Amino acid sequence: MIKLDYSYLSPEVSPANIAALQGPVELAHKMLHQGTGAGSDFLGWLDPAAIMDAAQLTKIKAVTAKLREETDIMVVVGIGGSYLGARTVIEALAPAGGKQVLYAGQTLSADYTAWLLNYLAGKRFCINVVSKSGTTTEPAIAFRLLRELLVREVGEEVAISRIVATTDPTNGALRTTVQNKGYADFPIPANVGGRYSVFTAVGMVPFAYAGINVDALITGAVACAAACKNPDLAVNPAYVYAAARNIMLEQGKNIELMANFEPRLHYLAEWWKQLYGESEGKDGKGIFPASVEFTTDLHSMGQWIQDGRRAIFETFINIDGGQPKVELPSDAENLDELNYLVGSDINSVNFSAFQGTALAHRSGGVPSMTITLAKLDAFNFGELLYFFQKACGISGYLLGVNPFDQPGVEAYKKNMFALLGKKGDAVKAEVTAAVDAAVGVNVVGF
Amino acid sequence: MIKLDYSYLSPEVSPANIAALQGPVELAHKMLHQGTGAGSDFLGWLDPAAIMDAAQLTKIKAVTAKLREETDIMVVVGIGGSYLGARTVIEALAPAGGKQVLYAGQTLSADYTAWLLNYLAGKRFCINVVSKSGTTTEPAIAFRLLRELLVREVGEEVAISRIVATTDPTNGALRTTVQNKGYADFPIPANVGGRYSVFTAVGMVPFAYAGINVDALITGAVACAAACKNPDLAVNPAYVYAAARNIMLEQGKNIELMANFEPRLHYLAEWWKQLYGESEGKDGKGIFPASVEFTTDLHSMGQWIQDGRRAIFETFINIDGGQPKVELPSDAENLDELNYLVGSDINSVNFSAFQGTALAHRSGGVPSMTITLAKLDAFNFGELLYFFQKACGISGYLLGVNPFDQPGVEAYKKNMFALLGKKGDAVKAEVTAAVDAAVGVNVVGF
Repeated sequence: MIKLDYSYLSPEVSPANIAALQGPVELAHKMLHQGTGAGSDFLGWLDPAAIMDAAQLTKIKAVTAKLREETDIMVVVGIGGSYLGARTVIEALAPAGGKQVLYAGQTLSADYTAWLLNYLAGKRFCINVVSKSGTTTEPAIAFRLLRELLVREVGEEVAISRIVATTDPTNGALRTTVQNKGYADFPIPANVGGRYSVFTAVGMVPFAYAGINVDALITGAVACAAACKNPDLAVNPAYVYAAARNIMLEQGKNIELMANFEPRLHYLAEWWKQLYGESEGKDGKGIFPASVEFTTDLHSMGQWIQDGRRAIFETFINIDGGQPKVELPSDAENLDELNYLVGSDINSVNFSAFQGTALAHRSGGVPSMTITLAKLDAFNFGELLYFFQKACGISGYLLGVNPFDQPGVEAYKKNMFALLGKKGDAVKAEVTAAVDAAVGVNVVGF
Repeated sequence: MIKLDYSYLSPEVSPANIAALQGPVELAHKMLHQGTGAGSDFLGWLDPAAIMDAAQLTKIKAVTAKLREETDIMVVVGIGGSYLGARTVIEALAPAGGKQVLYAGQTLSADYTAWLLNYLAGKRFCINVVSKSGTTTEPAIAFRLLRELLVREVGEEVAISRIVATTDPTNGALRTTVQNKGYADFPIPANVGGRYSVFTAVGMVPFAYAGINVDALITGAVACAAACKNPDLAVNPAYVYAAARNIMLEQGKNIELMANFEPRLHYLAEWWKQLYGESEGKDGKGIFPASVEFTTDLHSMGQWIQDGRRAIFETFINIDGGQPKVELPSDAENLDELNYLVGSDINSVNFSAFQGTALAHRSGGVPSMTITLAKLDAFNFGELLYFFQKACGISGYLLGVNPFDQPGVEAYKKNMFALLGKKGDAVKAEVTAAVDAAVGVNVVGF
């Protein structure tokens, strides 16, 4: 159950302002559901039951159950959509004291990579390499290093039984490797882009290994898909979210801050930044997606939000129940003046902080919405992730962009390949000359 | 040694544009160094040798050396400036396999707090409680809970020997507690605000416990203070940084992205966000400080940065040396097409990614600066932190704000206290009525 409360968008956004977008929203809805909009080759995520059917889920459970018996750590090798969905759900939901999931191929840091290789040596680990092509630089480097370590530690044959590949079902370098080596493998559907892939095997393999209730997660996504299929803005919170943020942008509120009050939701914001940033940040357009963790960041970014440049709106994530009870002990001296809270549990203080913050920010000129989850479990989290995916498709079409491509991601790669001397790409001499001519011209230092 | 390269700010910002600010910069310099500007009661940080003298450092080393013998974990209890500086330096510099430092009082999450209390039970831990007043809600709650756990585990007498308080030298609730209980204690100087306190005992106690070279850190700060004392923009990189970002803001680049290529620098960005956000985000002004970690986030926010709304500039942090060597193994099959990198180490790939990214973003309309550190060690990191503090004071005065106050931080607290029924604050009924009237009016969900 998801509830979107946009009361604090008033006076900038009223229900009438939302309703005025019913026409454009219906158009966007048709573009999505009839596949008539830009990027319509990448709409597989719309139907979570189709991209993660029962047969595939059964196979995922079997493969990961065996890995859970034989290993203590899974290293997920991937970047972007092949990393953030997995980490988001695991940080939010993985039971304490369960299997450990670590990440590689999401950075080129030698420091991190050396630490990881050293940490894994002598431990029982498996690898889930996630890449549509198998040639993306970061995960390809990490996979070479980790595979070598694993073979060195347990031998070629056992290593093969501890590697699972999630990749294109028919094409690409990793697909060929799977065929040559005989790794267990799962498909990344051709019609699902990276940032919309959390409900495919890209997410489900690490989730199942981590002990997350994958059935409930998918059931949540399916429930949300059903609930958010009606284009009527009076009943569809995902479409209201999409409409409201576009109205905010038109009014010059061009930074959206996702704010949560639970550290477990840190990576939800990172996943959401990719989803909205990559879907809408093109053609010189797009809300800048940023995030804060409260009350922590009320003591860092709080001042800016309360009194700084008035170009932001906030989206709060509120968890309605299920937190553990932690009660404040009494103290006869009461020097810290907290005895008025004795008998309360911390979560109620956290909730008052949320209420007080939303009110204070609204008073300071920051409109906000609040998305409330009944509790932080697999079903509700599955609903939430689908909610954001659905809203993003609508929001991107309302903005007038293709929410399913990412042409700008290639620019740094092209330069990097040239600088590294990779064949077949931009000329090394040319890019090196461009860097040399630009860099080091205006420098000051000591 | 710090080098600021602003070549990629061209064509928007030339050396002549920087030089044109020499007059205002000199004025700001005088306001800082003669204490004639707003907030001049909080300039103690200007002289790091004065706020952390040899006698205090000796005492910190002695107290933490004993705690290192008797315990394995230090829990730092603090929020905002009493949290971020400590975490920033420890994440960047703490040696692997050393003492563990954990954090409390930086969140009201019951989930996190319950996890922490459970994790600590049965382990040898000490507490460093950091609070000027001792009544800030988040750390005060955490300190009550942790102190109770510690007393339960080791008894009152041993517990007292494992608690260190960093607080106001004369006033406040925590000062009184120190006097009553006899905890070891260190001062937070009255003339240093939270976000400028990293070189006081606020930082030094956890740094020394974590095994960081505190002498080198302070020496770096002192060296940077000397190097950045000359107001001449031709030689002072901190002042050029301050001038350049104000020019960017005037040109409508109102989001600054701190970008790094090392995960260890994650909290540097969080600390920097507090420093600049809290110092400048007031009176409806201020650059919005945000951060990205590359290459990770080139696969999430990279698209937005390359092609989205042109309202951003970037500040890259580049580490010039000292990374471990991790070489790519050869692979006869070369399906991943990486053999052209065999013989290179990963760090050189990371550096090419940095060069390629800065060039690509510049081509896409994103100006940038690069701050290069010779290596990531205590001396250079001490220089870097001081660099940002000094630049922030100048930048705030150039912007026309008081860079040393934070009046907006009280707004949420006032509402929260009222909602919780704390005596002496805003009337509970009034704030509750305001929340009730506002929230739940416009809701859509399922």
